[in-house]
Amino acid sequence: MQFYYYTLVAGVAALVIALFAAFYVLKESEGSEKMKEIAKAIKEGANAYLKRQLYTILAFAVILSILFLFMDNGLSIVIAFIVGAAASYITAYLGMSIAVKANVRTAKSAEKGLNEAFRTALLGGSVTGFAAVGFSLIGLSLLLMYFTTLNIPLLIGYGFGASLISLFARVGGGIYTKAADVGADLVGKTELGLPEDDVRNPATIADNVGDNVGDCAGMAADVFESYSVTLVAALLIANSIPNAPTSLFAYPLYIAALGIIGSFIGVFFIHVKKGNVTRALYKNILLAVIISAILDLVLTSALALPMSYFIAIVSGLLLAFLLFWVSDYYTGGGSKPVIKIATAARGGAGTNVIMGLAVGLRSTWLPAVFVVAAIIASYAAAGVYGIAIASAAMFSLTATILTIDSFGPITDNAGGIAEMSHLPARVRKVTDHLDAVGNTTKATTKGFAIGGAALSATALFVAFANAVHINVIDALNPLVTVGIFIGVLLPFIFSSFLMEAVGHAANLMVEEVRRQVRTIKGLMQGKAKPDYAKAVDIATVNALKSLALPEIVAILTPIIVGLLLGKAALGGLLVGMIPASFMLALTMANAGGAMDNAKKYIETGHFGGKGSDAHKAAIVGDTVGDPLKDTAGPALNSMIKVVSTISILLAPVFLTYALMP
Amino acid sequence: MQFYYYTLVAGVAALVIALFAAFYVLKESEGSEKMKEIAKAIKEGANAYLKRQLYTILAFAVILSILFLFMDNGLSIVIAFIVGAAASYITAYLGMSIAVKANVRTAKSAEKGLNEAFRTALLGGSVTGFAAVGFSLIGLSLLLMYFTTLNIPLLIGYGFGASLISLFARVGGGIYTKAADVGADLVGKTELGLPEDDVRNPATIADNVGDNVGDCAGMAADVFESYSVTLVAALLIANSIPNAPTSLFAYPLYIAALGIIGSFIGVFFIHVKKGNVTRALYKNILLAVIISAILDLVLTSALALPMSYFIAIVSGLLLAFLLFWVSDYYTGGGSKPVIKIATAARGGAGTNVIMGLAVGLRSTWLPAVFVVAAIIASYAAAGVYGIAIASAAMFSLTATILTIDSFGPITDNAGGIAEMSHLPARVRKVTDHLDAVGNTTKATTKGFAIGGAALSATALFVAFANAVHINVIDALNPLVTVGIFIGVLLPFIFSSFLMEAVGHAANLMVEEVRRQVRTIKGLMQGKAKPDYAKAVDIATVNALKSLALPEIVAILTPIIVGLLLGKAALGGLLVGMIPASFMLALTMANAGGAMDNAKKYIETGHFGGKGSDAHKAAIVGDTVGDPLKDTAGPALNSMIKVVSTISILLAPVFLTYALMP
Repeated sequence: MQFYYYTLVAGVAALVIALFAAFYVLKESEGSEKMKEIAKAIKEGANAYLKRQLYTILAFAVILSILFLFMDNGLSIVIAFIVGAAASYITAYLGMSIAVKANVRTAKSAEKGLNEAFRTALLGGSVTGFAAVGFSLIGLSLLLMYFTTLNIPLLIGYGFGASLISLFARVGGGIYTKAADVGADLVGKTELGLPEDDVRNPATIADNVGDNVGDCAGMAADVFESYSVTLVAALLIANSIPNAPTSLFAYPLYIAALGIIGSFIGVFFIHVKKGNVTRALYKNILLAVIISAILDLVLTSALALPMSYFIAIVSGLLLAFLLFWVSDYYTGGGSKPVIKIATAARGGAGTNVIMGLAVGLRSTWLPAVFVVAAIIASYAAAGVYGIAIASAAMFSLTATILTIDSFGPITDNAGGIAEMSHLPARVRKVTDHLDAVGNTTKATTKGFAIGGAALSATALFVAFANAVHINVIDALNPLVTVGIFIGVLLPFIFSSFLMEAVGHAANLMVEEVRRQVRTIKGLMQGKAKPDYAKAVDIATVNALKSLALPEIVAILTPIIVGLLLGKAALGGLLVGMIPASFMLALTMANAGGAMDNAKKYIETGHFGGKGSDAHKAAIVGDTVGDPLKDTAGPALNSMIKVVSTISILLAPVFLTYALMP
Repeated sequence: MQFYYYTLVAGVAALVIALFAAFYVLKESEGSEKMKEIAKAIKEGANAYLKRQLYTILAFAVILSILFLFMDNGLSIVIAFIVGAAASYITAYLGMSIAVKANVRTAKSAEKGLNEAFRTALLGGSVTGFAAVGFSLIGLSLLLMYFTTLNIPLLIGYGFGASLISLFARVGGGIYTKAADVGADLVGKTELGLPEDDVRNPATIADNVGDNVGDCAGMAADVFESYSVTLVAALLIANSIPNAPTSLFAYPLYIAALGIIGSFIGVFFIHVKKGNVTRALYKNILLAVIISAILDLVLTSALALPMSYFIAIVSGLLLAFLLFWVSDYYTGGGSKPVIKIATAARGGAGTNVIMGLAVGLRSTWLPAVFVVAAIIASYAAAGVYGIAIASAAMFSLTATILTIDSFGPITDNAGGIAEMSHLPARVRKVTDHLDAVGNTTKATTKGFAIGGAALSATALFVAFANAVHINVIDALNPLVTVGIFIGVLLPFIFSSFLMEAVGHAANLMVEEVRRQVRTIKGLMQGKAKPDYAKAVDIATVNALKSLALPEIVAILTPIIVGLLLGKAALGGLLVGMIPASFMLALTMANAGGAMDNAKKYIETGHFGGKGSDAHKAAIVGDTVGDPLKDTAGPALNSMIKVVSTISILLAPVFLTYALMP
């Protein structure tokens, strides 16, 4: 019996878990009419955005599909591409659909207590987590079944489909969420002195929509893609080993499948003890890591593979945990770097941001050392295949990580709904607490996503070399040098588009909010309702407008380099792009996360607390950090995978048509 | 007759030009007692800093010299190292000594008119420019003469000496200047509403000292080093060509020597017409480029070298001009990107900084394309030797570029002295105008310095491969991959130290200024004098305290990688470090420069002008940009050269003792 029947079953099992969790969440009460109304507005905004984004995606997908048809195996590639893209989109859409229902139910269940609200939010998040894993495994298994032989362009087509959706979701969602957030905060908090999520702020619904389309749908598509591409890379590398036994192909997929068990136990059997939510989430991950490690050990032995392979697995699992920890160290509330930034806020907004950028830049070194150590250890254990296995082991935790990540927007929204519908202080205390924890988990899962993307891109890079039939990418060859320059350049220019888009859209949002405050009579007294829809529309339109350019740059750059400068330069491009994107993404994510928590640190009463000059300075830092951590930083993950997969996918084209040999 | 006799003569000629310019400047009047007093305070502060910095440098130099003595040819290396370091230090010291005398004389000659003041400042700056070229050529020629044969460790020892001083001058000077500047602005401008350089601001003398130790001495040491290292790299590459004729060794040195003539004509025969100072400076560069090109064409023909080599020269000269132009495009007053940032300031400090960072990130692409084009063109023309020649041609403009750069701190100081000694409005208008131009030239010369550093480091990289006897640096080798990750990491972590140091020292400065304003009675009414010395002392002590860590990281990282992971990984480190430093340095320099000019754009009356909310927001952006553009960004140039030269210098050690083959 072929191994992919097992992985198909595992994928179905993951979907069943997701359905079960969704069922559990949906049977919870939605609360009062007021709460339902707010939740409905958020849901409609989020759905409307995802629907309109789909049109832009379709335009790209159709053009690319037509181009693929001209290649050998064109039809198969297009089918695989569409399957990958559809699986990713459905995951993101489904996850978000549950998230926008779980938010109000979390707020409602907060009446019963912290543990109940925690459970609702976590189960809501787990729908995204398990759906991602389920759809990815099912999609891959079906392709393997249908085409029976291992077909490289096909697998890569699948990966590229997932990457493309991921890029759209990350870029569009990221711009949306931060345009709304920055716009809402700049006028609401700074100028008008309103609290977060105040009903009188016209941008507040848009802000809550943004959390769902950015943090939930965006992250889901991102990690779905890393998960899928990691498995694809492992299959390709196994395929490049002469006379590889079937077990080498089954191994990474089985590791992924076993991760479902570890994640399931982690998510469904953890409770909050003594009100310590963070501790519960940490335990969740640790449990998933340990159970996965044990199961993988059994697997390695059962497949009669060398035990040294298990070292690669441990490297991957350990890396996941360490990346989680290091993000927490640099951005967690009350950590040393965060206090440093808060202290600098006493000197003003300028020194606050300077210190925030310093912390972001600094935060790259430990993750880099961890990734490097994982590469060395897994390579020493099992060669290049070991790197792929480490990557698969790391992403076998996907369900857990995505659950914890989606927990963020759900609790954030729950806090917003509780505030806007004026729930009692007791309930809001619960939702605020969960919201704060969700903020930190959102930041820490980014470290995982970025590090994982770098590791799996490194494995993909080897797959690229196989695809273009080269054994050496010599950095002393000036064409490679030039490729490396372009590769390092790519993340800089790509993130500049996103930063600019947010800056621009946020400015429009600020002007709109100011306009509504000025023209709608009684708004500030709470007698008149703001025009939420107009703010939602601004975020939607501007996110969609800013989508195309960065996408085109990411897709066209490797094509142009491959055609003009040839495969060696394109190899150089990948070599430069991966580490540069990794460092830049970490810098941005952690600078933003740390400045966010520095502001929160001051809000808890330090250096004068809320309303002090230090607080005002810290709000500026938080604003600058917003697009760094939630737009530009995370989108780089998707970028490196799109560039890598399209480079492999078009390898035959470059081999035939490139100007340079 | 050996070719280095000619270059020795050229070096002496450059020194004579520098002396002549110094003589011309020093015979100008120093102005009133008040002006002399202020100038004296600046001079003493600057000299005191450079003297104390010397002790730290000596400590490093002694330790390194002792280590070098254990190597083969140890004594020769130490001698060359000391010669390189001394030549660099003397250049920086001499240039700065004239700058702190030219500042007050520029202020005084502003009484006579714009052209007179322009001339004094430009000639003051030209002392640094021609002294750098002169000392470098003399030092190299003497070494070649004394040791007669081309000795690789020796040449690299010379280059490393220059690099080490450059690193200290850039790091220490950069921290000093921005700690003082940010500290002075944050309290002075933002809190107290004082104009720039107001006598009542306790940090104002420290601010003016900073311009000299940072922009003048720091830049001089930086470019001196790039110039020297470029020539060294060219000699090493010529040496690696089997049976290379002497003309290949003489060629780059002659190109450098001929650049003196072009620069001389450019600097000494340009006048300001119709009050357009920027145009005069542009003409200066263009004239130097054209004359150098013509002379180099004659040279190529005279040495009977292939005319294709001339393409490499044109690539280098053109690159210099284009880098100048592109910096001007992204950071120049009133340019499109600058207006974009100023527009974003209407939304607040947050959107202002977001847009500033976006512009900085974006500004990398054109320079990267230019550098890549120069690499391709010069390699196509003459192989790796062509890259070295392009680099030499580019740096043959050193005297011009350094002159224009040093023009910046001189005119900045002249503006300060005019303000502090209450010169008439008519005079201050002249100094203010020159100050504004100087600000832009300071920004544009950075593009040259960064691009040039990247190009010459690329040539050095080939020299490294020769030194460790490898023909291939294969990015598919995981050790190389790991090296690349570490190389890309290096500029991130290095600049984080500098950003943090500025953030920290600026905060202390802010507190000190606030303390003086609070405790010194009559200070704000102009009845009591502030304690300038205390502010100078804070900047000095903190710059020196923060020096060691980044230096140690820059020096030890390649040594550790070379010893533990071997030459392949170290090669990877260089491969990753060069483009990553290039992009990061450009991002930082241009983000800072553009935010600076966005503030100035608002000050000229746009979006509400001085004192408006947009202006306050722009001041925050300017503050954030300060350490980006004047500390972290430029220091990366020096870092890549220190890492490159020490990697080559210690090549024999790595070949013998590395853990990995």
